[in-house]
Amino acid sequence: MWEDRLARDLESEIRKIPLIDPHSHIDPLRATASSLDDILGYHYYTELAHSAGMEQGPLAADFEPRERARAILGHMERIDNTAQYGWFLDIARSFLAFKGDRITQRDADQLWDAAQRCMSQPDWEEQVFRRSNLECVFLTNQFDDPLEGFDTSRYVPCLRTDDLVFHLDTGQVRQRLASVTGVEVGCLAELIEAFGKLFAHFQNHGARACAISLPPDFIPTPVEQGDLDRLLERSRLDGALAADERGVLARGVFWSLATCCREFQLPFDLMIGVNRRVYRGGVYQGQDLFDQRTSLIQYTELFNAFPDVTFPVSVLSSGQNQELVSYSWIFPNVVTNGHWWYSNIPAYIEVDSRARLQAVPKTKQIGYYSDAYRLEFVLPKYNMYRHVLARVLADDFVRAGVYNEHQAIEFARLLLRDNARRIFQV
Amino acid sequence: MWEDRLARDLESEIRKIPLIDPHSHIDPLRATASSLDDILGYHYYTELAHSAGMEQGPLAADFEPRERARAILGHMERIDNTAQYGWFLDIARSFLAFKGDRITQRDADQLWDAAQRCMSQPDWEEQVFRRSNLECVFLTNQFDDPLEGFDTSRYVPCLRTDDLVFHLDTGQVRQRLASVTGVEVGCLAELIEAFGKLFAHFQNHGARACAISLPPDFIPTPVEQGDLDRLLERSRLDGALAADERGVLARGVFWSLATCCREFQLPFDLMIGVNRRVYRGGVYQGQDLFDQRTSLIQYTELFNAFPDVTFPVSVLSSGQNQELVSYSWIFPNVVTNGHWWYSNIPAYIEVDSRARLQAVPKTKQIGYYSDAYRLEFVLPKYNMYRHVLARVLADDFVRAGVYNEHQAIEFARLLLRDNARRIFQV
Amino acid sequence: MWEDRLARDLESEIRKIPLIDPHSHIDPLRATASSLDDILGYHYYTELAHSAGMEQGPLAADFEPRERARAILGHMERIDNTAQYGWFLDIARSFLAFKGDRITQRDADQLWDAAQRCMSQPDWEEQVFRRSNLECVFLTNQFDDPLEGFDTSRYVPCLRTDDLVFHLDTGQVRQRLASVTGVEVGCLAELIEAFGKLFAHFQNHGARACAISLPPDFIPTPVEQGDLDRLLERSRLDGALAADERGVLARGVFWSLATCCREFQLPFDLMIGVNRRVYRGGVYQGQDLFDQRTSLIQYTELFNAFPDVTFPVSVLSSGQNQELVSYSWIFPNVVTNGHWWYSNIPAYIEVDSRARLQAVPKTKQIGYYSDAYRLEFVLPKYNMYRHVLARVLADDFVRAGVYNEHQAIEFARLLLRDNARRIFQV
Repeated sequence: MWEDRLARDLESEIRKIPLIDPHSHIDPLRATASSLDDILGYHYYTELAHSAGMEQGPLAADFEPRERARAILGHMERIDNTAQYGWFLDIARSFLAFKGDRITQRDADQLWDAAQRCMSQPDWEEQVFRRSNLECVFLTNQFDDPLEGFDTSRYVPCLRTDDLVFHLDTGQVRQRLASVTGVEVGCLAELIEAFGKLFAHFQNHGARACAISLPPDFIPTPVEQGDLDRLLERSRLDGALAADERGVLARGVFWSLATCCREFQLPFDLMIGVNRRVYRGGVYQGQDLFDQRTSLIQYTELFNAFPDVTFPVSVLSSGQNQELVSYSWIFPNVVTNGHWWYSNIPAYIEVDSRARLQAVPKTKQIGYYSDAYRLEFVLPKYNMYRHVLARVLADDFVRAGVYNEHQAIEFARLLLRDNARRIFQV
Repeated sequence: MWEDRLARDLESEIRKIPLIDPHSHIDPLRATASSLDDILGYHYYTELAHSAGMEQGPLAADFEPRERARAILGHMERIDNTAQYGWFLDIARSFLAFKGDRITQRDADQLWDAAQRCMSQPDWEEQVFRRSNLECVFLTNQFDDPLEGFDTSRYVPCLRTDDLVFHLDTGQVRQRLASVTGVEVGCLAELIEAFGKLFAHFQNHGARACAISLPPDFIPTPVEQGDLDRLLERSRLDGALAADERGVLARGVFWSLATCCREFQLPFDLMIGVNRRVYRGGVYQGQDLFDQRTSLIQYTELFNAFPDVTFPVSVLSSGQNQELVSYSWIFPNVVTNGHWWYSNIPAYIEVDSRARLQAVPKTKQIGYYSDAYRLEFVLPKYNMYRHVLARVLADDFVRAGVYNEHQAIEFARLLLRDNARRIFQV
Repeated sequence: MWEDRLARDLESEIRKIPLIDPHSHIDPLRATASSLDDILGYHYYTELAHSAGMEQGPLAADFEPRERARAILGHMERIDNTAQYGWFLDIARSFLAFKGDRITQRDADQLWDAAQRCMSQPDWEEQVFRRSNLECVFLTNQFDDPLEGFDTSRYVPCLRTDDLVFHLDTGQVRQRLASVTGVEVGCLAELIEAFGKLFAHFQNHGARACAISLPPDFIPTPVEQGDLDRLLERSRLDGALAADERGVLARGVFWSLATCCREFQLPFDLMIGVNRRVYRGGVYQGQDLFDQRTSLIQYTELFNAFPDVTFPVSVLSSGQNQELVSYSWIFPNVVTNGHWWYSNIPAYIEVDSRARLQAVPKTKQIGYYSDAYRLEFVLPKYNMYRHVLARVLADDFVRAGVYNEHQAIEFARLLLRDNARRIFQV
């Protein structure tokens, strides 16, 4: 059985590089898990267990958490082939002193108790941060987040704008916006005023990016001011708009956000391709899927109109990745960003990253982000990525004579840390 | 020259797993070939030979079969790089005592005679079955197949429904349906009645699946009963409908079939993406191609509406495969099924299966089917799949530390046998 | 660190095969570079340097060439991971006696001077030709190229038709056509007459192919003669047509070209999928990108209507490559052609060529072309391809037991030379 010693050596060196994790859903006030339930409640486990046959009863809010963990673990054997199971095993070994090779329902009590012990330590967050070799991790903040009570050099705020773009015509979002900005938006000028206050608030609290996830059919283009004024006024008076008008409003709001990103010099993370609520009976956060028939050509106007805004782009399929490789090779303001969601398994990370590493300027690639909801997931997810990265660097760079080992590791440092540091100015 | 001993060991163990082959076109009354002509008449050889320059003269019904074999073999050198040629070489070696490394026209007589000798043995079918380590193989039965004269525990009936969905408005199909069910369909209620009789007939004869192949632009959605009643009545009176009405009828009939699958608890095999008669001058069965621009998002309504029906899904491209991986990871009722047609070559099997193995619950994957027209093709096709599978298991599971060798082989057993056994209840 | 000796041995043998390069943009009157500026001015370097942050000032026509080279080299470190950088390093080592492992701005003077020395040798073109082991290279000739002053057995003319198909309604193109054919086109008959003269001129000067690049949404179909007559007449009188009429005209002209290809027995190279001027602020030739949402199904009518015309097809993505594999496996007149532009990096060459090598008749594959603007790029680009090819042949053919080493090399000879020789009749 041959082994790839070079890849292993590279991996070992790459693991020493401190991480900047430029996208997560971590709550900085509860960054780590407080029980095994917080780990197994991650949608990857609930959705895979459900897909493999688990009823949704155990997922009810009032279900006893320890029994929920047992129920999910009871379905682990059916998904023990998956990369997601691998993260859990890695967490158990790295953080919960688990020694075995497999985790089954029989381990439920032991793991539950180990988690209680570990996670109740007062310095648990500190331990996880340190053992993950993490410098800082970006958050996903709703636009009305007060951004207070945490260290923004460690937990970097990021303005998430899905609600503003796609739901500004609902009373709830308008009200939230009015309540944090004091502006009742009824025209474009007021929208810009409100957004200016939002962006200033975020920037004052250390925000380093604006972000949004977009459906596959979204085509950002500018909207005539008169049209946008009318729609904003109508929505202020009458509430929710008709579907086609919502589409126009979304484009107009999106374009205004890009304008603010330019003004406030914030990169605008685009996460392209997700359709929401496709499996309507799915578990919480386990309902969204994609349509491969989308193209970055849809973003032509945007990329041309905002040469001074950096767009770190995430995509959901290898077909879209090949476009992303080409668009970031051509457009100075387009940057590859991580391996997102359904693409975040070794088989796709490998093909997608190979192409990026070979064809996109090395300074324009953000290698990875965790997308984690709890700090404990940063380590196993980056481990998965680093393992693939080491193999690609070994095969395509060192053995191919492109880089020596030292240069390959420096490339990895750009991917894991230095590019994010420069692009997001952290 | 390094060799992968681990992969070879795994392959050798995997070959011992008895096979359930859940999709073929085998005629149970003439399961094996009766001459070399039956082997070389497989559309893969006629279409590749034609593509490589063979005129279609030798394919005429009245052409002397031995000369036809010689003509096709005469073009083999031009296609001896293909996976399909590899199957033929494997058949020659495994079943026809061929000892060489290459097959050319010079081997025509020897192979023809060897085939005559072997295939005329009274227990040939039994021999092939046993040497293929086959437990049972699924058929593709037209809806008016009497399903008699064969052992349905070995040859498992499967109700193929393309004609019903796409050609019910033609007199011929209506007549065939009337003749086996006694129902002259003129409204939805009669359609359901007729389908009930069909399904009962099939279930009484051991059918374990319903199946259909679908064009890339098909979007299954329910049709209003009134509309469907009108179309069925009109077609009963006037025959073939206009193109757009045919589309509505097809959707209505398809939805009714899904309803029957639910009632009769039959999985519904969906083979998605084929356009018929693209190369109009092509050889028989060598005219169909695909359009990569299709998406499983088109099946959202179906998958949501029938949570109790299992849909084993086959796709035609790696782009669609990535969607399939994600959809079967999320939807409990969507299952990956084999490596179909243009995707059934090692290069695509490898990338497609790697993703499935890493991301879909292991109980929701049907690894492979032969799609064979003659029993002799089951072995070489499975050999090709098992070779790739062993390599993927070696690299991504055993060497990656996910599984030990025993566990990897048990995973293969699910893919090759146990998942099909459970899902199709054979 | 394991090494693949078999792949290395194959690569070494494959490099001995003389090359027929069936597509380039070489100017036969200035085939080689005359300075380092000609090498670094290749759009791959200007666009990657620009994408990585270089302003466009140094690209101005009146910028001092030696300083321009220094400016581009100053950005090389940011793109030293790319395959394109690899070509440059290969050129420096193979042709400019460069001995180092990396090239940075510090090497600017040395490289500039070395280039001056080498390229000013009177037999430089001869040296490059010989050291590249090149038999002949195809050109890209505008339809009004006089095709004189060069050896057409070495530099094979190819009629490029983009202008005719997409801009015939502009005064400039009409005038150029009139000036070389003497025909003022105002109807289909005159168009055919003019094209007949063009094709005869090209054929008399040794042309061996007609070629065109096509946008992703192009769907070639025949146009009614009456419609085409009207559009040609209108455009003769009024000049440029409206967008939809231009589309009809383009289809009509394209179909006429295919007719001429049939009559003059010229293969018609289709380069499918490029959108022009997507990044409007991009450098010269660094503005075009693709839309993955295209399908060869759009070419159904064409492939069916012209069974006697060979269509060597190039595509821009792996999704399209999978279609190309299937279409060339089925259609006798469809041939795979090279690895084009954004697909021309090892990661995509590997997956795309693996599928072609396993599934398309070996006589129907044109392995590679350089697409080069200067002769010096033929060698490094082919080196990249041959390196990947050797690995695929080692893994998928020799180690898989399909071919022995000799047969694998003969397969490579078809890909690199003999198929092009037969298909283009050179």
